[in-house]
Amino acid sequence: MKAQINDVNARHLQTHQDDLNYLANKLSKRNVDVESIVDTLSAFQVAIPSWALGAGGTRFGRFAFGGAPATLEQKIGDVGILHALTGSAGAISLHIPWDVPEDPSAIKELAASKGLIFDAVNSNTFQDQSDQEHSYRYGSLCHEDKAVRQQAVDHNIEVIKHGVSLGSKSITVWLSDGSNFPGQLNFRRALQNTQESLHAIYAAMPSDWKIFIEYKPYEPNFYSTVIQDWGTSFLLANECGDRAFTLVDLGHHLPNTNIEQIVSTLMSKGKLGGFHFNDSKYGDDDLTVGCIKPYQLFLIFNELVFGMANNEAGNPDLAWMIDASHNIKDPLEDLIQSLEAIMIAYAKALLVDQDALKALQLGHDTAGAQQLLQDAFRTDVRPLVEAAMLKSGAAIRPLDTYRQLDIRASLIEERGVDSMATGL
Amino acid sequence: MKAQINDVNARHLQTHQDDLNYLANKLSKRNVDVESIVDTLSAFQVAIPSWALGAGGTRFGRFAFGGAPATLEQKIGDVGILHALTGSAGAISLHIPWDVPEDPSAIKELAASKGLIFDAVNSNTFQDQSDQEHSYRYGSLCHEDKAVRQQAVDHNIEVIKHGVSLGSKSITVWLSDGSNFPGQLNFRRALQNTQESLHAIYAAMPSDWKIFIEYKPYEPNFYSTVIQDWGTSFLLANECGDRAFTLVDLGHHLPNTNIEQIVSTLMSKGKLGGFHFNDSKYGDDDLTVGCIKPYQLFLIFNELVFGMANNEAGNPDLAWMIDASHNIKDPLEDLIQSLEAIMIAYAKALLVDQDALKALQLGHDTAGAQQLLQDAFRTDVRPLVEAAMLKSGAAIRPLDTYRQLDIRASLIEERGVDSMATGL
Amino acid sequence: MKAQINDVNARHLQTHQDDLNYLANKLSKRNVDVESIVDTLSAFQVAIPSWALGAGGTRFGRFAFGGAPATLEQKIGDVGILHALTGSAGAISLHIPWDVPEDPSAIKELAASKGLIFDAVNSNTFQDQSDQEHSYRYGSLCHEDKAVRQQAVDHNIEVIKHGVSLGSKSITVWLSDGSNFPGQLNFRRALQNTQESLHAIYAAMPSDWKIFIEYKPYEPNFYSTVIQDWGTSFLLANECGDRAFTLVDLGHHLPNTNIEQIVSTLMSKGKLGGFHFNDSKYGDDDLTVGCIKPYQLFLIFNELVFGMANNEAGNPDLAWMIDASHNIKDPLEDLIQSLEAIMIAYAKALLVDQDALKALQLGHDTAGAQQLLQDAFRTDVRPLVEAAMLKSGAAIRPLDTYRQLDIRASLIEERGVDSMATGL
Amino acid sequence: MKAQINDVNARHLQTHQDDLNYLANKLSKRNVDVESIVDTLSAFQVAIPSWALGAGGTRFGRFAFGGAPATLEQKIGDVGILHALTGSAGAISLHIPWDVPEDPSAIKELAASKGLIFDAVNSNTFQDQSDQEHSYRYGSLCHEDKAVRQQAVDHNIEVIKHGVSLGSKSITVWLSDGSNFPGQLNFRRALQNTQESLHAIYAAMPSDWKIFIEYKPYEPNFYSTVIQDWGTSFLLANECGDRAFTLVDLGHHLPNTNIEQIVSTLMSKGKLGGFHFNDSKYGDDDLTVGCIKPYQLFLIFNELVFGMANNEAGNPDLAWMIDASHNIKDPLEDLIQSLEAIMIAYAKALLVDQDALKALQLGHDTAGAQQLLQDAFRTDVRPLVEAAMLKSGAAIRPLDTYRQLDIRASLIEERGVDSMATGL
Repeated sequence: MKAQINDVNARHLQTHQDDLNYLANKLSKRNVDVESIVDTLSAFQVAIPSWALGAGGTRFGRFAFGGAPATLEQKIGDVGILHALTGSAGAISLHIPWDVPEDPSAIKELAASKGLIFDAVNSNTFQDQSDQEHSYRYGSLCHEDKAVRQQAVDHNIEVIKHGVSLGSKSITVWLSDGSNFPGQLNFRRALQNTQESLHAIYAAMPSDWKIFIEYKPYEPNFYSTVIQDWGTSFLLANECGDRAFTLVDLGHHLPNTNIEQIVSTLMSKGKLGGFHFNDSKYGDDDLTVGCIKPYQLFLIFNELVFGMANNEAGNPDLAWMIDASHNIKDPLEDLIQSLEAIMIAYAKALLVDQDALKALQLGHDTAGAQQLLQDAFRTDVRPLVEAAMLKSGAAIRPLDTYRQLDIRASLIEERGVDSMATGL
Repeated sequence: MKAQINDVNARHLQTHQDDLNYLANKLSKRNVDVESIVDTLSAFQVAIPSWALGAGGTRFGRFAFGGAPATLEQKIGDVGILHALTGSAGAISLHIPWDVPEDPSAIKELAASKGLIFDAVNSNTFQDQSDQEHSYRYGSLCHEDKAVRQQAVDHNIEVIKHGVSLGSKSITVWLSDGSNFPGQLNFRRALQNTQESLHAIYAAMPSDWKIFIEYKPYEPNFYSTVIQDWGTSFLLANECGDRAFTLVDLGHHLPNTNIEQIVSTLMSKGKLGGFHFNDSKYGDDDLTVGCIKPYQLFLIFNELVFGMANNEAGNPDLAWMIDASHNIKDPLEDLIQSLEAIMIAYAKALLVDQDALKALQLGHDTAGAQQLLQDAFRTDVRPLVEAAMLKSGAAIRPLDTYRQLDIRASLIEERGVDSMATGL
Repeated sequence: MKAQINDVNARHLQTHQDDLNYLANKLSKRNVDVESIVDTLSAFQVAIPSWALGAGGTRFGRFAFGGAPATLEQKIGDVGILHALTGSAGAISLHIPWDVPEDPSAIKELAASKGLIFDAVNSNTFQDQSDQEHSYRYGSLCHEDKAVRQQAVDHNIEVIKHGVSLGSKSITVWLSDGSNFPGQLNFRRALQNTQESLHAIYAAMPSDWKIFIEYKPYEPNFYSTVIQDWGTSFLLANECGDRAFTLVDLGHHLPNTNIEQIVSTLMSKGKLGGFHFNDSKYGDDDLTVGCIKPYQLFLIFNELVFGMANNEAGNPDLAWMIDASHNIKDPLEDLIQSLEAIMIAYAKALLVDQDALKALQLGHDTAGAQQLLQDAFRTDVRPLVEAAMLKSGAAIRPLDTYRQLDIRASLIEERGVDSMATGL
Repeated sequence: MKAQINDVNARHLQTHQDDLNYLANKLSKRNVDVESIVDTLSAFQVAIPSWALGAGGTRFGRFAFGGAPATLEQKIGDVGILHALTGSAGAISLHIPWDVPEDPSAIKELAASKGLIFDAVNSNTFQDQSDQEHSYRYGSLCHEDKAVRQQAVDHNIEVIKHGVSLGSKSITVWLSDGSNFPGQLNFRRALQNTQESLHAIYAAMPSDWKIFIEYKPYEPNFYSTVIQDWGTSFLLANECGDRAFTLVDLGHHLPNTNIEQIVSTLMSKGKLGGFHFNDSKYGDDDLTVGCIKPYQLFLIFNELVFGMANNEAGNPDLAWMIDASHNIKDPLEDLIQSLEAIMIAYAKALLVDQDALKALQLGHDTAGAQQLLQDAFRTDVRPLVEAAMLKSGAAIRPLDTYRQLDIRASLIEERGVDSMATGL
């Protein structure tokens, strides 16, 4: 595949170099270290979740997409394609029980052969599996019944074991627990039970593992969610211990939330652990990253860059993941577009002169500070992203290359038009 | 079943009569015609959709409920139970193709035997059926491709035919058509195509039929919906003709929308045709009616009562329907709670002294007008609703009665714990 | 005034007693201790802020209201009227510098003569006063410049001193600090500065004082607010110390927030200190309590009642206050309506059988738990509120009585039609 | 001033030309007619409202800004500065009664000397003026009392007369009419009264005049607004006549509204008349254009460009205006930033290849269509905007130039630090 990618790259190389030269020239006049930015971008890796490689759907149905990966091996194959094309999808985030690795060492080897590692593993206590004793209809870690909580805790410990076998170092807990109707659930007991369950999972983790606690205001419960916001996740993470962190999913906020400020607050307290990328206009729409609010994404990255460069509070290396649902687009095309949008936002944030910004803030030059951020955002940084991908041996133009190489057709030929991916 | 209901009623009768006497006595001092209100409530009928009798679900899964009705006959049986218990569920709203009547006259007879008629029929062009030629992945009535539009129009005409065979007089078109990403769809062409498709359906209706055009801002499309708001539906209904109307679903609005004002505006122009009841906190949550915002429901009923009493603009008899999703509760219990909430809101609205309210408005007595509505809302009108149900030969306390008669257990015994209802 | 109130009461007494008898009879069958509820209601006192007695306004202007209290003495007079009429407005919450007490002991005596005490005092660093050295245009406690922060801290300490002189025991800090534009402010430094400033205020408090930290997502800043949500307030309160608490204002939340869950979480951690009542449909609309979402208010009270009865975590006695803006109604009428709405919601919450609710929750009877809350809410508890007011020597029907006694006319005669209250 | 601007331009000229050459070269390869785009941008003119030149404020207060224009002449002076700097602020939108022209021909001449014309005039019936007979506390055009409506109609006719005297050709009616509490107002009568009042204004307009009807969901009324959404405005405009149109203000929408679709719908029906620019995160925040959601602004411009190029329905030349509130920034700096953001969004929209987009839509290439819009948006078009400004004889970098020329200092010197602008 490298050779094919190189062939396509050859056609775009001259244009790329011209564009990069022009931009590098402009940026160097402003003392921007272009090479360092390209290196940073090139090193940046985002995990692809194993459930995101087939067609997503809504409660109203699903429109299938041909060539979906039906096995974990095929899913690794798909992520391998993404990584080959973009150089930035070097990790997989596994979902259990949808993708249980039967032969972990073979799976690990297969992934390694494509340059992939296993990032945070994900548990699932929001659905009932056919073989499970207790139902999660009324909750899992928060459940009133200890037996149900124990089952959910045990499942998480099982997930950690799978993760250990693959080299993962962290688990993400997204809990759909909550209620649909006032009165259904006692908020306090639900919180207390959840805290104890998380403790139990935390206690069972290997000492070099971390736990990420996700929050979400609603859906699939529509009156309350036990971990409804960052404040609740932060409180729970603090009560768990040093290796418990909050995970931010961009779509998990009420309308108009200032997410970048949440990112800043969590990082200033050393409690940001992971990040799920997607975009949305209404709720947890799980659209392609950057397709609706690219400026917000940039502002968030601006906080992330600032926070990583000023990490006195000791946040861990963040676990980055794309968490989108591919309802009508080819999932691989959708993921390529997400990866590009992430790289573009990151590149723009890296252009921000933090010292200059600070000086403007101290001088209360509001118009100037606004302008400084807008200048970075308005800059066309695509040549930098291209350079990073090229440096990683990937495609200058991943989406075009994916199409030119007719990869979907190959996948359909290989797997059939009706193959189904496990997942939602 | 009547006999069983009467038995349970006997236990509650004395309390009911005491409560009714107290309330009637109080209301009569304010010149409220209690008997007339009870008659009005007793005559009020809400349709139950054929898809709402099994467990609902979200994109994250579904928790099945035992004894679900697997056939149209069984669904009619369930609505019959609801109607026997509440006296207010005297109609069924059919969804095609989930519930195609194979033998219409037998179905009609079965329904009639339970006191049920067939209200508005519903088409489905938001899902692909296995036998259909063209996919609705990229829309149906709005589709760029005429062949797809024609297929969707033909389906609607087919639905009308089924409705005619059952005695229905109207069709509700809920269109999920829209887009997930900026650029995907040309708004103008989509609107124009939708208008032409609706025209074609309108033209195919029998002359005594009406069409109801539903609107919704998002879901299952997350960037745009072709009929995103009442204004678009109103525009389309006006361009269709006199027998085209807007249908309001309570859950189909952006956060904080003043729905009661929309109801008033549509009624003042003679263009409100139907109403879908449910409740929600976040989006189209499809929760039990009145479980989140009962005061809003009352304010909406206040507009409906005013509008029906001042119908110079010629709105038709409204098509009332419950459109909720029963994700964790017994669907029949949920529907009983919805029916009660509707009756309670309606009863409270009937208590509003419209002349007195007008006088306060003309005198700009804002506090007084607010108080007048609050007085009606704060009144415990449950004795009136009980009286209406009793008058209809139904249960004084439908939910208790449903439980006392152990109806779910009978249904599970009859149909099994794993029976599945067609639908979402 | 007592005599006048008694005269009006005499006309309503028989009706009240009939209503109370009927209700008490019903409730006693359910083992509700009616007398105890009336006692609890009668003892409940809500503070009236000194700035809420004149006409409020918006950025588009203000419509003045005649007879506004121009002095602190007149404001105390107005609160005295409210307290005489409702028996539930037994406290004043002072705003400095709008209402600096020149002669504290005289003021205190005047208040005491009307049965009033001084509850939490309020500082103001969101406006510039003519005599102040530094501007708060770019923030106060969060300001980049230490001199400005010191000025704001000093002001708060000054406010505490005024409070001490009047017998207050707590200070509420509402901070408008934030930014209007991305880039304007560094989130982390702003939070750090705010934390240090709050520490300084905390350290300066007498040892029997408490500080309440209010949060708000936006307005008057429209991009970010330093204390944007309960999580931030909670974090700051924890870092201040044991006598620092979060204050919840109902209008200070993003659309669709589950406020009752926030109340529960804060109380379960012993960190809820105060409560500001109002209602809203869109943002911080500051409308009359209970005029838009009375069921939400009831659900919040349900958590408060549960939390106060299960206060292992040691929340203080809550500081209750009405924080509404009276833009078009007579402020006193508006406040009477708010007080009644609060008492009604509280009374309904007191009807909730917490043991029965717990049993339903443990049995996962979702429909039953919903019904239990709805039963309490649907009960007409106004006779209980009337009884509580009567017991306090106040009016059975405060609004009617206010009008019958023509109090506004007296105030206009006394103070003139153009008198102006200090405040916004 | 031209000379001074040219001096500053000289310093930036070489960089500008290099950037333009690079961009023009790239675009010409894609067959973009760069010169035509620059011409279009250069011809584009946005009106500045006479009330936007001083410091704005919120209900919590205002932080004054030195050198505010105290007279209409000074306001024209300020707009003249903006126009000289940007070449795109060639019109003034007058607000009556804040800026009544005493000597219209002198005013007109003064404006003309600065290259300015008078665009739509604005009436004000949301505030009471000291000399007015009836109060608008309870509404104006919607008022229950005919005398109040007549007063409001007469005011609008007076405003039109002022407009005629200055060469305006249209009036914008923004109505704050609505209610704060359920029950306060009868929706139907309010709508009917408003319709009749608008008819009366419409009938009084000169035959070459247009009326623009603005909508807004809330504020300063917080329960209902008579013209709450585009649907209501559209309905009213249709009932007025051919020269009545809807006006869209970007901040006047509920959370998450798809505004670009509204623009498309109105244009497809020939009923879009005017446009008010600003940006917002929460409500009608009136922030600098493009500072929060620049991609949304681009998508809206994409619809405007498409709509103007496909104007079969006969929309008039749109009345463009900036409607922002300058609470903490120098108003002139803020307006410069708004003008630049508008030009940038417009330039990006002009880059969209509408034929290619249509082809992708017809082919259902969703990823491709998304990419096409993103490509346009991600392009750094600032050289095109610079070229347009240069072509108009304005500044290459208006904000820098404004600062270099130290214009605010001159204004303060001329007008004083305490001068006040009329307005909110």
